[in-house]
Amino acid sequence: MTTPHNPSAEDSLIARYFKPLATDPGAFGLVDDAAILSSSGDDIVVTTDAVVEGVHYLATDPPDTIARKALRVNLSDLAAKGAAPAGFVLTLALRSKEDAWLRPFADALGEDARSFGCPLLGGDTVSTPGPQMISITAFGRVPKGRMVGRTGAKPGDRILVTGTIGDAALGLDVLTGGAAATALTSDPAAREALISRYRIPQPRNVLAQAVRDHATAAMDVSDGLAGDLTKLCAASGVSATLNVASVPLSPAAAGLVARNAICVETLLAGGDDYEVLCTVPQAQSDALMEAGRAVGLAVTAIGTIVAGYERPRFLDGQGQELALKRLSYSHF
Amino acid sequence: MTTPHNPSAEDSLIARYFKPLATDPGAFGLVDDAAILSSSGDDIVVTTDAVVEGVHYLATDPPDTIARKALRVNLSDLAAKGAAPAGFVLTLALRSKEDAWLRPFADALGEDARSFGCPLLGGDTVSTPGPQMISITAFGRVPKGRMVGRTGAKPGDRILVTGTIGDAALGLDVLTGGAAATALTSDPAAREALISRYRIPQPRNVLAQAVRDHATAAMDVSDGLAGDLTKLCAASGVSATLNVASVPLSPAAAGLVARNAICVETLLAGGDDYEVLCTVPQAQSDALMEAGRAVGLAVTAIGTIVAGYERPRFLDGQGQELALKRLSYSHF
Repeated sequence: MTTPHNPSAEDSLIARYFKPLATDPGAFGLVDDAAILSSSGDDIVVTTDAVVEGVHYLATDPPDTIARKALRVNLSDLAAKGAAPAGFVLTLALRSKEDAWLRPFADALGEDARSFGCPLLGGDTVSTPGPQMISITAFGRVPKGRMVGRTGAKPGDRILVTGTIGDAALGLDVLTGGAAATALTSDPAAREALISRYRIPQPRNVLAQAVRDHATAAMDVSDGLAGDLTKLCAASGVSATLNVASVPLSPAAAGLVARNAICVETLLAGGDDYEVLCTVPQAQSDALMEAGRAVGLAVTAIGTIVAGYERPRFLDGQGQELALKRLSYSHF
Repeated sequence: MTTPHNPSAEDSLIARYFKPLATDPGAFGLVDDAAILSSSGDDIVVTTDAVVEGVHYLATDPPDTIARKALRVNLSDLAAKGAAPAGFVLTLALRSKEDAWLRPFADALGEDARSFGCPLLGGDTVSTPGPQMISITAFGRVPKGRMVGRTGAKPGDRILVTGTIGDAALGLDVLTGGAAATALTSDPAAREALISRYRIPQPRNVLAQAVRDHATAAMDVSDGLAGDLTKLCAASGVSATLNVASVPLSPAAAGLVARNAICVETLLAGGDDYEVLCTVPQAQSDALMEAGRAVGLAVTAIGTIVAGYERPRFLDGQGQELALKRLSYSHF
C-alpha cells in the first residue's frame, strides 16, 4: 500500500517534466483535472495503446526510445485512420521518479509531440511496484464521417502497404539473441538498423490524407501483417490473396531470407511494423503510390481483395499457397 | 518477454467481455483500431485517471467494485467540469484473463456505463507480470467555452462541497486495520458504509449542469479536501478560509471525531472522496444548494475565497487556525 508522503510530489513531477509539452491552450498548462478538445466541424478520432516494460519494450531499452514508441504506436493508428494528430493524454505508471530516466523520456516525448504536431493535453502519473507502463490515448481530426475504417474493403481492391515489413520483429530477435543475431554477427550496421525499427516506429502520418482520399479500408500493422490482414478482411466480410514475394523487405531482411537464416513467417507474423495496410480501388492505387513517392515513402501493392469469408491465402512466387503456422504476434 | 501464442486471445477477450459495452455507434463494435466522437457544437472535455492494484485499490477488493471505481473516478472529474459524459476508452493491464475476475469486472463496468450514460468506445488490453492496472480516459461534452476550470475563483466566492468528506479515507483505514477499525469493532454497519465509500465512489454527475451554471471554479476532491482546495486556490491566484466545523461529515465520521478516535486531518487530507468542490458567487450559492436538494444531494458552504496568495487557512469552531501537518494523500 501507499504511504502518505510529500503531497506535491506528483504535481512537481508533472510541472518539471511534462508541463513544457502541454503547449495546446486546451491543456490549461496541466493545472486542471481535464483538457479540452475544442469544438470544430471535425470528428474526433480516438485511439489508445499501452506499452508495458518487459512486454512491449525491453527493460534495457533507452528511455527516449520508450517514449517515442509509446506515442508513435498511437500516431500510427491515427495515420491509418486518415486523421491529423490533435493531441494526446498520458498515463505513466512508474516505480520511481528518477531524473535519469524521466528527463530523457520527457525530452524525447516532447520532441515527437512537436514534430508530429500532437501536443500533450493531460494525464495521470501513478506509482506501481511492478513493471513500468505507459498508456497513451491520442486524438486526431477528420472531416465529419471521413474516418477510414476496417469494414470498407471490396472485392477487386488492391492491397497496399507502406515501407517495409518484418524489420522490427528481426530487431527484437537481434536484441534477444535469436537467429537474426547469429546471422548478423559480422554486420553491426544491419543489426542497428533492425533494432532501431523495433525501438522507434516510423508512423506514416505524412500519408494520412492520401489514405483518407483513396483507401476503402485501412489499419496499421502492429501485430503482424498476416494476422492484421486477416482481421481487416473479417471486418469487411471479404477474403484476399497476398503475394508473399511482393511484400516489401529491407535489404537486411531480404538478405536474411535469401540465406535461409530466418523464415518468412517471422516477417509476416512478427508485429511491431507500424506500417499502413490499406485497400484501394484498382483505379486509385497508382494515385496512392504516387502520393507515397511524393513524400519519399514506398507504397507497395501486395495482393488483392476477393469475395468470400475464408482466411486470406498467402501465395509464394510460384502461386503456391504457403501454410503459415501463425499469423500474429500476441502478448497473451 | 512474451511468447507467441493464440493470435486471437486478445480479440476473443474483447469480444467476450467488452463488446457488449460498446453500444455507441462511434465504437464500431470494437472491431476497429479507433473510435469516433462525432462532431457537434460542443467542446470535448478529456480526463484520464488510472487505478493500480495495491495503490488505488486493494488486491482483495472485489472485481466489480474495482471496475466501478476505475470508471467513477473519471466520471467524477467530468461532473466537476460541468460536462455530460460522452464515453470512455479503457486500458486494462492484466496478469491473467480469468473469467472469475473478468466477468464481474466487465458486468459492473457495463452497468455503470449504462447508468451514467458513458459507453465504452475502445481500449487496449495488455498483459503484465506485475500488479493489475486500469487506465481510463473519459470524454464529456460542454457547450463551447463552458468547461468549469480551476482558475476562476474570485475573492468573496463561497466555497461549496457536495456530500460528505472523509468517509473513503476511514473506509481504507477500516480495511487496513487502522484506528477506525478498532473504534468501530462493535459497529459493522458503520464499517460497511465506510468501506463502501472507499470502494465505490459516488460521482456527482447529477449536479454537473448546476455546477456549470453557477460555479466560477471547480474540481473533484480526490487527494484530500485540504490539499485540493489549496490547488484550486493556487490555480486561481487566491486564498481561502475554510471552517472545519462546517465540513459535512457522515454520522459514522462525526461519531469517530466526537469520540476522538480519529483526528480531523484524516478526514481533510484523506482523499478518495470524489465529491465536487467549487466556488460560487455569494448571490448564486443558494441556487446551487437548491439544485442539490432537488436531486437529494447535500451541498454545503464550508468557507470563503479571499484575496492573497498564501495557503488557505483552516479554522476551528472558535475561529482559531488549525495547523494541518498534511493536506493531501499522495501515492508517491
